Amino acid sequence: MNGASPLLLTDLYQLAMLQGYFERGMHETAVFEFFVRKLRPGRGFLLAAGLEQVLDFLEQARFAPQELEWLRATGRFSDAFIAWLADWRFEGDVHAMPEGTVCFADEPLLRVTAPLPQAQLIETRLINLLHFQTLIASKAARSVLAAPDKLLVDFGLRRAHGAEAGLLAARAAYLAGFSGTATVEAGMRFGIPLFGTMAHSFVQAHDSETAAFRNFAHAQRDNTVLLLDTYDTEAAAHKVVALAPELAAQGIAIKGVRLDSGDLDTLARRVRRILDDGGLRTVTVFASGDLDEYRLRDLLAQGAPIDGFGIGSRLDTSADVPFLDCVYKLQEYAGKPRRKRSVGKATWPGRKQVWRCHDGQGRMAGDVVGLEGDVPTGEALLVPVMRGGRRLAAPVPLSDIRRHASDGLAQLPVPLHGLQESFDYPVEISVALHELAHLADVQMLQAPDES
Amino acid sequence: MNGASPLLLTDLYQLAMLQGYFERGMHETAVFEFFVRKLRPGRGFLLAAGLEQVLDFLEQARFAPQELEWLRATGRFSDAFIAWLADWRFEGDVHAMPEGTVCFADEPLLRVTAPLPQAQLIETRLINLLHFQTLIASKAARSVLAAPDKLLVDFGLRRAHGAEAGLLAARAAYLAGFSGTATVEAGMRFGIPLFGTMAHSFVQAHDSETAAFRNFAHAQRDNTVLLLDTYDTEAAAHKVVALAPELAAQGIAIKGVRLDSGDLDTLARRVRRILDDGGLRTVTVFASGDLDEYRLRDLLAQGAPIDGFGIGSRLDTSADVPFLDCVYKLQEYAGKPRRKRSVGKATWPGRKQVWRCHDGQGRMAGDVVGLEGDVPTGEALLVPVMRGGRRLAAPVPLSDIRRHASDGLAQLPVPLHGLQESFDYPVEISVALHELAHLADVQMLQAPDES
Repeated sequence: MNGASPLLLTDLYQLAMLQGYFERGMHETAVFEFFVRKLRPGRGFLLAAGLEQVLDFLEQARFAPQELEWLRATGRFSDAFIAWLADWRFEGDVHAMPEGTVCFADEPLLRVTAPLPQAQLIETRLINLLHFQTLIASKAARSVLAAPDKLLVDFGLRRAHGAEAGLLAARAAYLAGFSGTATVEAGMRFGIPLFGTMAHSFVQAHDSETAAFRNFAHAQRDNTVLLLDTYDTEAAAHKVVALAPELAAQGIAIKGVRLDSGDLDTLARRVRRILDDGGLRTVTVFASGDLDEYRLRDLLAQGAPIDGFGIGSRLDTSADVPFLDCVYKLQEYAGKPRRKRSVGKATWPGRKQVWRCHDGQGRMAGDVVGLEGDVPTGEALLVPVMRGGRRLAAPVPLSDIRRHASDGLAQLPVPLHGLQESFDYPVEISVALHELAHLADVQMLQAPDES
Repeated sequence: MNGASPLLLTDLYQLAMLQGYFERGMHETAVFEFFVRKLRPGRGFLLAAGLEQVLDFLEQARFAPQELEWLRATGRFSDAFIAWLADWRFEGDVHAMPEGTVCFADEPLLRVTAPLPQAQLIETRLINLLHFQTLIASKAARSVLAAPDKLLVDFGLRRAHGAEAGLLAARAAYLAGFSGTATVEAGMRFGIPLFGTMAHSFVQAHDSETAAFRNFAHAQRDNTVLLLDTYDTEAAAHKVVALAPELAAQGIAIKGVRLDSGDLDTLARRVRRILDDGGLRTVTVFASGDLDEYRLRDLLAQGAPIDGFGIGSRLDTSADVPFLDCVYKLQEYAGKPRRKRSVGKATWPGRKQVWRCHDGQGRMAGDVVGLEGDVPTGEALLVPVMRGGRRLAAPVPLSDIRRHASDGLAQLPVPLHGLQESFDYPVEISVALHELAHLADVQMLQAPDES
């Protein structure tokens, strides 16, 4: 599945519309914004992510000759249009919230200002990239809040929705505060710390559990984490204790054990006691298996002696909220504000900015969504990141993004630190934006229909 | 995000275990099987999919020099092991259910027979590929059953979890019986029929809705589907009627209209009436917006005059069941059956086959999961597809897979045609398999722990 073309990763209607724009010479400046219409239950805030991959896409997107040939062969497009597509480049401006910024519904995370055919064609892939990482970073942040001092590792690649989902989920979880991932390619590509233990198959392939543990310890001397639940968890813990002196004599310190099934609270207590009684107080207990932030919260509230968690499918698919109600909407064209008024899906027109205020303790107190020209009422969250199709700065190191996210999570209003609260963070629409929306409605109603 | 390495798309523990196998010379034959442990509520059956991409992966998987160099630099692996990885190839055998086969929990969809280090290393990506397409095909089949005579189009790329998810969701939905997709690259890569209309931004960018409709009709003369809900759906329908004669005079027949918000049942009736009264009886009504099989069923039960549906996020993320409880487990090694006995996650050991029986009407009556050598009790569902790392046949055309799926859906027991029933299709475990599981338990208990 390699070699996907960034520009054919689009909906057919983008190309159909582009042909319309092309034929009428509609290439004046358009302003589109990406935002989430509504937060779903279970998400009191979002963490913006995916900008880095969007900027890569915008810098590199162009049609390959064989793609144009294929488009021509569909018979849907004129030769003149196909020839024009050959020169298609993104040369617009982008403003965006830095990755790792806490954000809310109605707030643009990103704004594109470009000739209409450029701003239009990028829609599908831009949403695809921003949506997914924002989805996963927002989900991951909840585990970080639920278990702030624990080792949290992304285990989700196998049930992530394809290769890119697995890779980008590892990145999104790490920037949200996870300790690392099991996905090797995410380590190579993004420099994310890698973690791994062993699988049941390793134990099963040996004729005894102790033989499997011994073999693994020798093969992974500095990283010996032993899986206990293939047959009987407590019996396996006793085998670890029995094996430890032999390994110690060979210079191998067992680092940890992993539990992957059963009642994790009870088993963790029993295993902890067996390890402690066996003199293995420094051996950590790591848990996995159908976990998410709710299970973490409950296990820690019960006092389960667990030092780290591997979180897989429920993280990488954002299982309770598997997609966000996000869109990329035209807000201005040819200098005029544009407003969609569909039932339940009306938009705020114009070029917008988001300002954030903090209280005396440094916690977030409320945001204002206004027009770019409004008098600032706090910290402006959207910053210029691309001009004329070129990045304004080198990619932000992932460690910096991670720190920014961590700062943001620390500044969340107290109710948003919990998992279940229905706390509505105040997001106000500025007076000027209300007025522009009204004006856009009036202009639209006055427009002669036959033009 | 192109150029993902298939072999580094893996969990770190696979490489850690491989080093253990390497050091002990554990390369005897292993048998792993991929299956789903339990069906979740809302999925009475599954449709197997993804085999084609798995076979591609197995044929092509190898380490690139720079990947090996990176692995070496992590300090986790010995030089001898890295050198051995350079020659790693998959040279095993694969048995699998053909894509599009209806299947159930506990039934292996695929079996790998290969030297242990080969069968182990492929686990993560193999699950990643088989899981996702099976997930989406199974979801898509439900819309096909709910709206068997309607045009069903995948609209999900933008909120699919990354590029590969969008592409493979288009493929999985099509093989399950969808009419096509909006994803252009899926058209080019898989030959899937493409469908598309127009976006709200196209209407907004014009100074009047009629101007937008006229422009689009000229740009897409053979495929004029007009979006009605940007401002006021019924008013837009009247504009379509008013514009139709002018377009007809220019040889353009409007093909359809699309509704994307509001009460789709009521709006479809009103729009249908406006179109009919305006002499546009052949213009079809297409609906989209937050749809899934439940909404389709309800709209059709109400008699909404809708001819086709665009189904997006809820399809491409399988929103109600965003992942399956699927695994790839070691069932035999070095000639001995292997069994995992973890609480709630015990496996059936040995090399298995699935047989299916039909009743007198040709409907599926029950399956038996047994050992490969059992006396056949119906149609064998697992067939050989790869030997010695090479496919046994050319890829199956997608149209054939689609027909096979369609045949399977037609043979489903009547209760599984509905969406909500809690019907448990009978899947029996053969006597010989019960006996082997017992034997594996006994062997494991008798095994000397210190070996």
